[in-house]
Amino acid sequence: MSKNIIAIDAMGGDNAPKSVIAGLAISSIRNPTVNYVIYGNKNIIAPLLKRRTNLINMTEIVHVEGLVGDDEKASKALRRAKDTSMGQAIASVSDGAANAVVSGGNSGALMAMSIFGLKRLEGISRPALAAIMPTVNGEILALDLGANIECSSQNLVDFSIMGIVFAQKVLGRPHPKFAFLNVGEEENKGKNIIHDAVKIIEGESLKLFYDGYIEGNNVNFGKIDIVVSDGFSGNIMLKTAEGTAKLCSEYLRQVFNASLLGKISYFIGRSAFLAIRKKMDPRKHNGAVLLGLNGIVVKSHGGTDSLGFAHAVDLASEMSLKGYNEAIKHQLTELKLTEIKK
Amino acid sequence: MSKNIIAIDAMGGDNAPKSVIAGLAISSIRNPTVNYVIYGNKNIIAPLLKRRTNLINMTEIVHVEGLVGDDEKASKALRRAKDTSMGQAIASVSDGAANAVVSGGNSGALMAMSIFGLKRLEGISRPALAAIMPTVNGEILALDLGANIECSSQNLVDFSIMGIVFAQKVLGRPHPKFAFLNVGEEENKGKNIIHDAVKIIEGESLKLFYDGYIEGNNVNFGKIDIVVSDGFSGNIMLKTAEGTAKLCSEYLRQVFNASLLGKISYFIGRSAFLAIRKKMDPRKHNGAVLLGLNGIVVKSHGGTDSLGFAHAVDLASEMSLKGYNEAIKHQLTELKLTEIKK
Repeated sequence: MSKNIIAIDAMGGDNAPKSVIAGLAISSIRNPTVNYVIYGNKNIIAPLLKRRTNLINMTEIVHVEGLVGDDEKASKALRRAKDTSMGQAIASVSDGAANAVVSGGNSGALMAMSIFGLKRLEGISRPALAAIMPTVNGEILALDLGANIECSSQNLVDFSIMGIVFAQKVLGRPHPKFAFLNVGEEENKGKNIIHDAVKIIEGESLKLFYDGYIEGNNVNFGKIDIVVSDGFSGNIMLKTAEGTAKLCSEYLRQVFNASLLGKISYFIGRSAFLAIRKKMDPRKHNGAVLLGLNGIVVKSHGGTDSLGFAHAVDLASEMSLKGYNEAIKHQLTELKLTEIKK
Repeated sequence: MSKNIIAIDAMGGDNAPKSVIAGLAISSIRNPTVNYVIYGNKNIIAPLLKRRTNLINMTEIVHVEGLVGDDEKASKALRRAKDTSMGQAIASVSDGAANAVVSGGNSGALMAMSIFGLKRLEGISRPALAAIMPTVNGEILALDLGANIECSSQNLVDFSIMGIVFAQKVLGRPHPKFAFLNVGEEENKGKNIIHDAVKIIEGESLKLFYDGYIEGNNVNFGKIDIVVSDGFSGNIMLKTAEGTAKLCSEYLRQVFNASLLGKISYFIGRSAFLAIRKKMDPRKHNGAVLLGLNGIVVKSHGGTDSLGFAHAVDLASEMSLKGYNEAIKHQLTELKLTEIKK
């Protein structure tokens, strides 16, 4: 594949396909070398594209009548995958016609179809859902965020490798540090699967990137680049962070509305308040990636708008342009090298 | 026991015993009917008490030379419990001389000594660490926060009962709602131990208080009174919330310092900013309770100051005054009543 082609499921998400096309228009300006193939109802999509002159030249529409329902069971969606915009977009990646797929549709269906359609990368025991979270001085990659409720030690080790390659390729950090999410920093704290994962790492060159355990209150403080956990704990962490950030915004709103001085202060400092809102804008970190498959899969939040969808497309574009999947194949061998050659 | 007596480990925590005595002085004004027995080095404690005239009349000092080290292993501390201020304070609860114990010392040692010394309440499979978290319009009780890394379904059910009684007795909510922390709201989402806990509840009168699953992003939004989870997930939730709140404060500080208008806005709105800081002040929610033992055990954060310690003592005082442990014995029978009588 010489070109960078992103397959777009235009029919997934609350405001699809309108927010999808508007998001593509934004992302296309930031990534002018990418091409898109849009899967969905041509009769709705084509008129939306008409006004987007720059986008038209980068885009092809493939008409698909069916779509995956928001509440549709993953097993049912999987059976009729090829009749849906989501399923056809994924198939285009497995056929090699596209490098990546982006969808704002049903998460369970997207995971099931992607795992079934794209298959796991050789050497990866389970795929993982990963996303970028804000820290005080930058960003951190967190995985798994919910693809695997129960995990083995080997799963955690594989997630670490996928995270390291992501940090190197996409975040541009040549020597990233990863840590396991845990309830304490001492060696004997927490779950056995974590202790056993540490033992596996001890014998591999992966060890060079390992930075111990990290607790929930330190994740945002920029000491490491990747936080690795089972999917249950990772999901709790990500969503608690979302909820707490929302709570802080709400407190801010309440308190500055409560008095005249507060309102004046808000008026004078509104550029500062806007800057905070921008810093905390969840759309900036929209897009969770399903890592570990033969192809790039990005899940956009179903409730996001065009700006959020654009960030998800940016992520898919960057991963494609920077050759994430090629790199991971190489690194899988490197990082699992045992130091004592047999 | 007709009096409400709180045993205080004066020697635990970063600024002990100074912050401990100062905290007691604050709490004693709010709870004038409580008496304290302070365990620790009399030569250091007595001079600190001298200036606190109101406190002296409510207080007795028991001289103990030894103390539990911050990094001391729980197993080691357990063996020499009776030579330490922490161990003797706990023993006074098991002897019936005090209703509750408060310590800012080594968490692992406090848990081990308390479980060993006070024993589990009959009918409770495991004790749990609980704390109050802020929500947009009030407070929520969260448990377990780390006493049990791995949990059974029955553990989760027992935590729910302990939480309900706490919400009724201490938070003053006659009909509290509890939910299980999970990665989705649909019935089939998440871990099997949660699904099995739901099945147990189905057959008990406990069901009347059950409100389904809750995700990390909704915990702070006041729909329920109690969030129940295994100790690993609960710890991740609590600490992530702490870390994210700290991140928000840091953003606030950075952004308003970055421009002159920001600084002016801060100057004018400083009462609003102080109100936010107050709302988000972790000291207000200092004090984690080990529920499910024959006696009340409150762990104060080791790094807190006198205000924080005062909140931990408030919590122990309220639980004692409102008869938490008497109520739970009664409710254990009531809430586990099967609807279909055999």
